[in-house]
Amino acid sequence: MTLLHRVNRHGAVIPDPSALPNEPVDFGSKLQASLEIWRDKGHRSVLLELPIHLSELIPVAVKAGFAFHHSNAQELTLLRSLTAEPVFVPSATHTVGAGAVVINDQQELLVVWEATERNNPNRYKLPGGYVDPGEHIGTAVEREVLEETGVHARFEAMVCVRHWHVNLFGSSNLYFICQLTPLTEEIRDLDPEIHDVKWMPVKDYLASDEIYPFNQRVVEMALRGDGMSTGNLEGYARSPEEVEIFFQP
Amino acid sequence: MTLLHRVNRHGAVIPDPSALPNEPVDFGSKLQASLEIWRDKGHRSVLLELPIHLSELIPVAVKAGFAFHHSNAQELTLLRSLTAEPVFVPSATHTVGAGAVVINDQQELLVVWEATERNNPNRYKLPGGYVDPGEHIGTAVEREVLEETGVHARFEAMVCVRHWHVNLFGSSNLYFICQLTPLTEEIRDLDPEIHDVKWMPVKDYLASDEIYPFNQRVVEMALRGDGMSTGNLEGYARSPEEVEIFFQP
Repeated sequence: MTLLHRVNRHGAVIPDPSALPNEPVDFGSKLQASLEIWRDKGHRSVLLELPIHLSELIPVAVKAGFAFHHSNAQELTLLRSLTAEPVFVPSATHTVGAGAVVINDQQELLVVWEATERNNPNRYKLPGGYVDPGEHIGTAVEREVLEETGVHARFEAMVCVRHWHVNLFGSSNLYFICQLTPLTEEIRDLDPEIHDVKWMPVKDYLASDEIYPFNQRVVEMALRGDGMSTGNLEGYARSPEEVEIFFQP
Repeated sequence: MTLLHRVNRHGAVIPDPSALPNEPVDFGSKLQASLEIWRDKGHRSVLLELPIHLSELIPVAVKAGFAFHHSNAQELTLLRSLTAEPVFVPSATHTVGAGAVVINDQQELLVVWEATERNNPNRYKLPGGYVDPGEHIGTAVEREVLEETGVHARFEAMVCVRHWHVNLFGSSNLYFICQLTPLTEEIRDLDPEIHDVKWMPVKDYLASDEIYPFNQRVVEMALRGDGMSTGNLEGYARSPEEVEIFFQP
């Protein structure tokens, strides 16, 4: 008798977390017996998902040859190969952020000054922030603009991608700079992490010594209006929420 | 006396993994005492990095109020807020891949047929694969083309970005399709995961019913040659290995 499990299309055995013995010694002996049977059946690997309330089982799994694979706050997944070759199972490697170039009819750019950067001479930055898990980039950048400035704006195009390897915990960061059209102009400084928000004449922004040259360059690109826009391909995904595609104009 | 630690610029306490007591009861009492002192000092959170050989300390940390945060194969990091508010510390949310449109002087496209897709009628695909941690996208796509086909090619531009939320373990996938110029043409089928490689006339690829419409569309975009190319900004990063920026042409 093995631990209750399913096998995915890559030959990985995935035990049912809700059916695991919660007593470490009992779990250890059943896991050991299961590993032998799964190996004999030719399965390639085991992905063991442990909810945090079963964290006492983690040292048992490590003793049985598992390595950590990935986790979220409430669950750790461990991986063990059943063959002589190492098994590659992809896990998340990148954080993702989005920044907004929002320019109004008076050729003014929406800029924010973060509360944590009071002493930074390059103080006015583009609004933006992290993309939530499962969230489209276009949706994320509209949300961040609204949260940080109170301005409603519509995603138009992606104008620049920055890929940076200096980041927390060895993961890299992808930063997508997007061009948006403002639908409202009233500034409401809602986010406590934002010290100031204003509409700044684009020509002042581009001429200022206090703005990062990178930001000036992406604003110039957005002004040209030839970024990548999102497009649909009929029948490509089950729903528009599933996939977001950026095409050249 | 607290556990040996440093404090990062966000007010997070990070204990030194090499100085942790490896006996669970001893660790538990010292952790509890340290948490009280760190809270009194006004620190915001604790990021506890546990190497896999100290996995017996994980259940102790969970009992002390820690949640899982992220992991790699050999280390699990747990997070605990020291304030009433929850603390957001970003962790990786995305896997990243790159695909290649490689077209030679005879208007032929380099395509691969994966060994795992023997029965798939849409069998010829663009070469590509996962971007390694810390690797530039331009480097990754050149490497994947070489590994899968034996062809040396040079990154020219990014022509399409696909953001897909249907992926392993709740992480989303970003897929960057790039245009490359071949530097050699000889096919050497080196990768055991590849069943066949060939140069296929672009007009046949675009006319075929057996090719995904998405792939046909990105090849059309690459033919137009107006994708985002990489550019340097003087003084922006400490080294070219640190950051990769894709700009509109």
